[in-house]
Amino acid sequence: MFTINENYLKLPGSYLFSDIAKKIAAYQQENPEKEIIRLGIGDVTQPLAPVIIQALHSAVEEMAHGETFHGYAPDKGYGFLREAIAKNDFQDRGCRIDADEIFVSDGAKCDSGNIQEILALNNKIAVCDPVYPVYVDTNVMAGRTGGYNPKTQNFDGMIYMPCTAQNGFVPEFPKETPDVLYLCFPNNPTGAAVTKAQLQEWVDYANRNGILIIYDAAYEAYITQEEVPHSIYECEGAQTCAIELRSFSKNAGFTGVRLGYTVVPKELKSGEISLNALWARRHGTKYNGAPYIVQKAGAAVYTEEGKAQVKEQVAYYMRNAHAIYNGLKKAGYTVSGGVNAPYVWLKTPGNTTSWDFFDQLLKTANVVGTPGSGFGAHGEGYFRLSAFGTYENTLEAIDRITKM
Amino acid sequence: MFTINENYLKLPGSYLFSDIAKKIAAYQQENPEKEIIRLGIGDVTQPLAPVIIQALHSAVEEMAHGETFHGYAPDKGYGFLREAIAKNDFQDRGCRIDADEIFVSDGAKCDSGNIQEILALNNKIAVCDPVYPVYVDTNVMAGRTGGYNPKTQNFDGMIYMPCTAQNGFVPEFPKETPDVLYLCFPNNPTGAAVTKAQLQEWVDYANRNGILIIYDAAYEAYITQEEVPHSIYECEGAQTCAIELRSFSKNAGFTGVRLGYTVVPKELKSGEISLNALWARRHGTKYNGAPYIVQKAGAAVYTEEGKAQVKEQVAYYMRNAHAIYNGLKKAGYTVSGGVNAPYVWLKTPGNTTSWDFFDQLLKTANVVGTPGSGFGAHGEGYFRLSAFGTYENTLEAIDRITKM
Repeated sequence: MFTINENYLKLPGSYLFSDIAKKIAAYQQENPEKEIIRLGIGDVTQPLAPVIIQALHSAVEEMAHGETFHGYAPDKGYGFLREAIAKNDFQDRGCRIDADEIFVSDGAKCDSGNIQEILALNNKIAVCDPVYPVYVDTNVMAGRTGGYNPKTQNFDGMIYMPCTAQNGFVPEFPKETPDVLYLCFPNNPTGAAVTKAQLQEWVDYANRNGILIIYDAAYEAYITQEEVPHSIYECEGAQTCAIELRSFSKNAGFTGVRLGYTVVPKELKSGEISLNALWARRHGTKYNGAPYIVQKAGAAVYTEEGKAQVKEQVAYYMRNAHAIYNGLKKAGYTVSGGVNAPYVWLKTPGNTTSWDFFDQLLKTANVVGTPGSGFGAHGEGYFRLSAFGTYENTLEAIDRITKM
Repeated sequence: MFTINENYLKLPGSYLFSDIAKKIAAYQQENPEKEIIRLGIGDVTQPLAPVIIQALHSAVEEMAHGETFHGYAPDKGYGFLREAIAKNDFQDRGCRIDADEIFVSDGAKCDSGNIQEILALNNKIAVCDPVYPVYVDTNVMAGRTGGYNPKTQNFDGMIYMPCTAQNGFVPEFPKETPDVLYLCFPNNPTGAAVTKAQLQEWVDYANRNGILIIYDAAYEAYITQEEVPHSIYECEGAQTCAIELRSFSKNAGFTGVRLGYTVVPKELKSGEISLNALWARRHGTKYNGAPYIVQKAGAAVYTEEGKAQVKEQVAYYMRNAHAIYNGLKKAGYTVSGGVNAPYVWLKTPGNTTSWDFFDQLLKTANVVGTPGSGFGAHGEGYFRLSAFGTYENTLEAIDRITKM
């Protein structure tokens, strides 16, 4: 008789953003006249840049003719895209990353969920707290943890690295040495960033201890400060200890287009085994390539026109981030993030819990944010506001919140 | 110190189609003047139908404007597509399948690789032999088998169900009762089909023994015979024992567009646990939805125009299948398949091995097919030719083969 993967039953509820969507839907149904402003989920609102639209149309047209039709894509992605990525995102920043170390995919969420599959089940995992839930949940589902402790909001056997106001939302090395360590900078949800010197310490720590760093750089396009690295490969020695995840969702508005990539350096090995080869095997067996038209759209992002247009879009959202940050600060809230990231991390007033603040904001201001506790125990008492709304809605939301 | 998933090391080589691609590339490099005809990989060659192109252009245009821009898609797919699927592919055929039992994805290869994740690691797996390698490899990678035995070409602990000329390439119930059973009809690679009465026996067998059937119906559009079922849900009781995988790759030419779906009926349970809920959790955590523009293209397939246009395309490929089947038969080859499937399964002449025949065909006729042994031990001595080439190339290939 067949049996299910019981690790799934350890997960306390449904996926955070599904819960939020249900709460909003219920409130909207009861209050159809209310205009809800969503600064919750990290979804973009600006249309795709003209050069991307043009690339999509032209690729669609190619699919209409036998001579230019494209069937199955190469497993790892088309060379034209991998070359553009390697050059623009890495080599131009002085990082030694080649096209054959790039694996194109349908997004960083999938990659950050799938990457653990090439690792043994007995690896000890460390995550930041608060944290993007996918890192935790996918390791739970694979069976790398014990059960969930509702009191601590922790899974047994997982190492949590608190990110608090005291440490500027950048964790210290954990007491227990992990085997695998997830880092995300600029950070989701706190919006915190690390300097290159800080990240170098993590790379050295990882190399010293045989730790694999899974580095999520989905928000690198939002970096404004010189000393903040765009890639972990800007650090010496990262090639032997780090995998990097990248996304087109936030820099180019691809949340509904789906494109991302993973960098697995050839020097990254476990004994004699190349992780690049393992990920290639996983990619080739369980994935079938990103759509041709989407890869063409991705390549358009790296043209001169594309770079200028997406830069403008990032600036648009960063203006929102500053409006949120400054507006709330002026109103007396304690805020962080928003400088190198499209997220503002807000201390809830007094002893209000994150979910109470969520309900209050939804019902009083008709504004949706994300409860910090949804990202982990140390997110309790915090709240994430995203800069991905329209400018008008963002101003209106801040106005409503400050008048609450 | 981090360690890798050692199950990957059990896999004997790289993915079958990657191996073939390398062999072709090497030959082509040495013989740049040769015009190779590829009837190997099941990749389509006809351009997308006009109504699909139109839908893509129009969806791209929506992405260009704030008011019609689409960000993150719903986890399970857009309602417009899931409703169209439920109605056209199931309800119109008398199958009780609702839209909320449909999970839209980026293709059946991914789904057939990922679906095992919701199952316990100690499930005993049965597959046909020969078989689509993804079913086997993903279970090996997850750790559900022992090592590979090069002598038998089998993985320890996996149940193989021989599909031979004697049984018309439709397996008998295995001696040892499995927990999970993969079936694919119309079959890849043999092109064999089952009648509804035959499939009903499998459904009854599964329900009797608590077996989960993972039913791959990626080729259902190629069915020409009345008694062959298009969906396993045409059989009584399939709702309590079967998951079905479907693809847009072969019926609508989406190999480079990427769209598929999985049906997980709500009645399908392990004890009290709904597999629909488990797959929803997996989908919500490790996947982020198919691109909006691609889902709009998928919906176009279900319009009246769309249905007519893809039917024409299927007929085009089936004309190829008949040309291959009849041409080879006339030349004295033993052939099967090609009636309800776009694959012809060919007995290699004399005692030629599948890979020897591959080399012979590549070098003498400059035609690429797929060695039967790449699909399993019982594929040895067979060879798969795909009907997805152009008609002209297909005729030319058959001409070259028969003159060999």
